[in-house]
Amino acid sequence: MRIALGIEYDGTDFLGWQRLSHGNTVQGALEEALSKVAAQSVEVTCSGRTDAGVHGRCQVVHFDTGVSRTMRGWLLGATSNLPSSVAVLWAQPVAGDFHARFSARSRRYRYTILNRPVRAALDARQVTWERLPLDAARMHDAAQALLGEHDFSAFRAVSCQAAHPRRCVLAVGVRREGEQVIVEIEANAFLHHMVRNIVGSLLPVGRGEQPGTWVGELLAGRNREAAGPTAPSSGLTFIGPRYEAHWGLPAEVSQP
Amino acid sequence: MRIALGIEYDGTDFLGWQRLSHGNTVQGALEEALSKVAAQSVEVTCSGRTDAGVHGRCQVVHFDTGVSRTMRGWLLGATSNLPSSVAVLWAQPVAGDFHARFSARSRRYRYTILNRPVRAALDARQVTWERLPLDAARMHDAAQALLGEHDFSAFRAVSCQAAHPRRCVLAVGVRREGEQVIVEIEANAFLHHMVRNIVGSLLPVGRGEQPGTWVGELLAGRNREAAGPTAPSSGLTFIGPRYEAHWGLPAEVSQP
Repeated sequence: MRIALGIEYDGTDFLGWQRLSHGNTVQGALEEALSKVAAQSVEVTCSGRTDAGVHGRCQVVHFDTGVSRTMRGWLLGATSNLPSSVAVLWAQPVAGDFHARFSARSRRYRYTILNRPVRAALDARQVTWERLPLDAARMHDAAQALLGEHDFSAFRAVSCQAAHPRRCVLAVGVRREGEQVIVEIEANAFLHHMVRNIVGSLLPVGRGEQPGTWVGELLAGRNREAAGPTAPSSGLTFIGPRYEAHWGLPAEVSQP
Repeated sequence: MRIALGIEYDGTDFLGWQRLSHGNTVQGALEEALSKVAAQSVEVTCSGRTDAGVHGRCQVVHFDTGVSRTMRGWLLGATSNLPSSVAVLWAQPVAGDFHARFSARSRRYRYTILNRPVRAALDARQVTWERLPLDAARMHDAAQALLGEHDFSAFRAVSCQAAHPRRCVLAVGVRREGEQVIVEIEANAFLHHMVRNIVGSLLPVGRGEQPGTWVGELLAGRNREAAGPTAPSSGLTFIGPRYEAHWGLPAEVSQP
């Protein structure tokens, strides 16, 4: 039987999603919790790995098991065995050909910038601090150059293991909410560090140090070294993947 | 010279505001940081003490010093000596008769309830979890009975050291924002645990276990034992005090 789970986590104290032989990871904590519920080893496959310090609002995983438990049993059993920074939001059976990664039609990320003279305190775990005033409308306009299918080499980490650098950005927006500037981006998939590298190049535009056309020029130039630095991990949250409606998954991970 | 500061903090890892001879407190951390900047001992007076685990969005303190530093020097110097969970938002000179506690005309608190079947993970430090569905509109209506000046003995902790139990609630509201139910309350001052005890009695109303008239009945009965339990500290944030405009403090702590 194949089961899908929605997972929420605060990534601050983890070395990232992917299980490591040594070190605290979200996948490692989740597999350990599920294995206790199953009383046998469980391995999960996620919709998209996240780096150290990056959060998950609704990561989706699937796993296969021959063990019979109610969905409520998986959900409550796993959550009670997880650290307080990870929770299972929902559990449901899925068709055998559903795959958390390959069935996902798109992924959504949010990057939150605390834009004020003083560093964060109360929200320090979930924001990145920018001291200089940002023009969110200017950042929004500049980001529209990313829409559509492009070669995103300009925003690709050297360590990226993807087969090719072409990705399709479906939506991108930048808006201000009080002291926060929020970047949201949806794409079919992302290269390694792609969101953080895009944010790192939107920041100089927002500060007025680069023209609004700069982001589009960087994209066309396909040169990672010309673009801005990688923005810190703390501001980044993986909102979650989206699947076709026929899989019957919860609304927050289904295509509208 | 008398100086006022705005202070933001995540109270999760503190034993509360008030300095203790042993243990980690916000006041202790702040006085230690200011004393380093002044190169002499600094003691602060706050607008309202907060308990262990309670957060501060804009706590206000004042202190007196003969040491000459720029306001920028106090702000940056203190913040760089504070742990990442505390920051100084602003610093400004105030009249010698300004008093962070006695000049405050009102205080505002926010209580955030994560209302969903599964406990918090990503926002665990700033919310309290309620599993059963809450009717926020019903809670809002019930809470209106608290408006005005009353004897709040029904919502007063046994440990409360206030001279009398009369307080004046200026505004109270309950609203839903997605999975969160948010309670906001402004009063001239608060008794010990007053907000958490009010929330503890609004929750049974929101769950439909008590009628909407219950909160008003509890208030009139002045019997702490009849009211609901004290809600947990993690959901509570001290938004800050309000002062008369003539003190010239920032808008977030001035009367509108």
